[in-house]
Amino acid sequence: MEQLVVIKIGGNIIDDEIKLSSFLKDFAAIDARKVLVHGGGKLATKLAEQMNVPQQMVDGRRITDAETLKIVTMVYAGYINKNIVAQLQAEGCNAIGISGADGNAILAHKRVHPTMDYGFVGDVDVIDASLFNNLLQQNLTPVLAPITHDKKGQLLNTNADTIAQETAKALSAFYNVELIYSFEKNGVLLDINNEDSVIQKLNTDYYKELKQEGKIFAGMIPKLDNAFAALDSGVKKVIIGKAEEIHELINGEKGTSISHD
Amino acid sequence: MEQLVVIKIGGNIIDDEIKLSSFLKDFAAIDARKVLVHGGGKLATKLAEQMNVPQQMVDGRRITDAETLKIVTMVYAGYINKNIVAQLQAEGCNAIGISGADGNAILAHKRVHPTMDYGFVGDVDVIDASLFNNLLQQNLTPVLAPITHDKKGQLLNTNADTIAQETAKALSAFYNVELIYSFEKNGVLLDINNEDSVIQKLNTDYYKELKQEGKIFAGMIPKLDNAFAALDSGVKKVIIGKAEEIHELINGEKGTSISHD
Repeated sequence: MEQLVVIKIGGNIIDDEIKLSSFLKDFAAIDARKVLVHGGGKLATKLAEQMNVPQQMVDGRRITDAETLKIVTMVYAGYINKNIVAQLQAEGCNAIGISGADGNAILAHKRVHPTMDYGFVGDVDVIDASLFNNLLQQNLTPVLAPITHDKKGQLLNTNADTIAQETAKALSAFYNVELIYSFEKNGVLLDINNEDSVIQKLNTDYYKELKQEGKIFAGMIPKLDNAFAALDSGVKKVIIGKAEEIHELINGEKGTSISHD
Repeated sequence: MEQLVVIKIGGNIIDDEIKLSSFLKDFAAIDARKVLVHGGGKLATKLAEQMNVPQQMVDGRRITDAETLKIVTMVYAGYINKNIVAQLQAEGCNAIGISGADGNAILAHKRVHPTMDYGFVGDVDVIDASLFNNLLQQNLTPVLAPITHDKKGQLLNTNADTIAQETAKALSAFYNVELIYSFEKNGVLLDINNEDSVIQKLNTDYYKELKQEGKIFAGMIPKLDNAFAALDSGVKKVIIGKAEEIHELINGEKGTSISHD
């Protein structure tokens, strides 16, 4: 099977115009079929302030009331998505912006939770892998905004990490998929205060061991659990590292490479 | 060649939730390949007010400074486009939202004008008809937002009537295209104050005659000149009428049908 790289970039890159532009140059130069998934960044929060829409965060998740949904739809699927697409086009990469509603790409449902009402937050049900495959075969590069829909007319705000993971899993039916989570640090660190303590290779046994010893930073655990879950669902490799070093992450020269063995 | 309907809806429909929802139901039910082009509506103006971005209009065109471009990108390509797509999906129409940057669909350049600086306003250079044809052949229904790009990384604000016309012209290479401009009135009226005075058929000679007699409302002249230009470029039929009567417009029962003879 052909190789496919699914890359998720987070807010720290999106909020920094120079870093974003440099990342997009590097991304456009990747010589493989690819999908980009972007998060939100601070712009939605800024716009909410300007519009006097109070924002409520619970465990790092934005509670999405109707006005907030309007804001994230405008910012994520509009401003950020189209600016990334336009910049990639300028770099010769034939990008196409996709939200979950477009082509019914990502079907989700409003989150059901016993005690909390997250508002218009969506949990992913189905990724239309054929749609993505058709676009990829037309040499288009999908750029995914973290907005989904329920096919009943309702848009939903969905976590970009989850979208990246689900897309990587679904596209494993057609490709050898590498899933890259880019974030602020050099990779998964043994010592959170030491950027040189990157774990180069993390397999199931080593992860168990480190978790038991309490050596994995709490914030990393959901990311790593998701990474192993992705491997269970057919993704070939998961890499965690810095967006500024995207080519080195793909080459295996930098970051943390996660596999079962 | 197969039939294709290109429909442009304007702000009066977009600003009215009930009318829009009813239009989208009717649109989804059209039994032919189709493309929807939407304008902006009042939401961008409202958002600009909330964000304290003063808006300047010249001859009905919005002067698009950097902050205004940000607003129209958020509102047109984000909020309006994704809500229309989600509603069409709910009606069983496999819609896909497209701005001019997506897939390099609509290449434009920043308007050059001897005396006026329109800001980030784009005039269309090239429509990628193959991209649209590929999407249509995948049974996708493109929904176009009036935002284009210059392939140098710059997004541009472009008139939705023009996008509809250029898309209809370009797709005439693959389809028998009917272009429908929907607006507030029943059609082109002989007497602007009488909604029953619809001109059912308007050909080149009759148009010349009416223009010479001063019987065409000034605001209609650019629309009609564009309609005849579209016919010159391969579009089979142009119809002007009410969005609320879309099926009757397609059937030829209502509105003004424009042709060369």
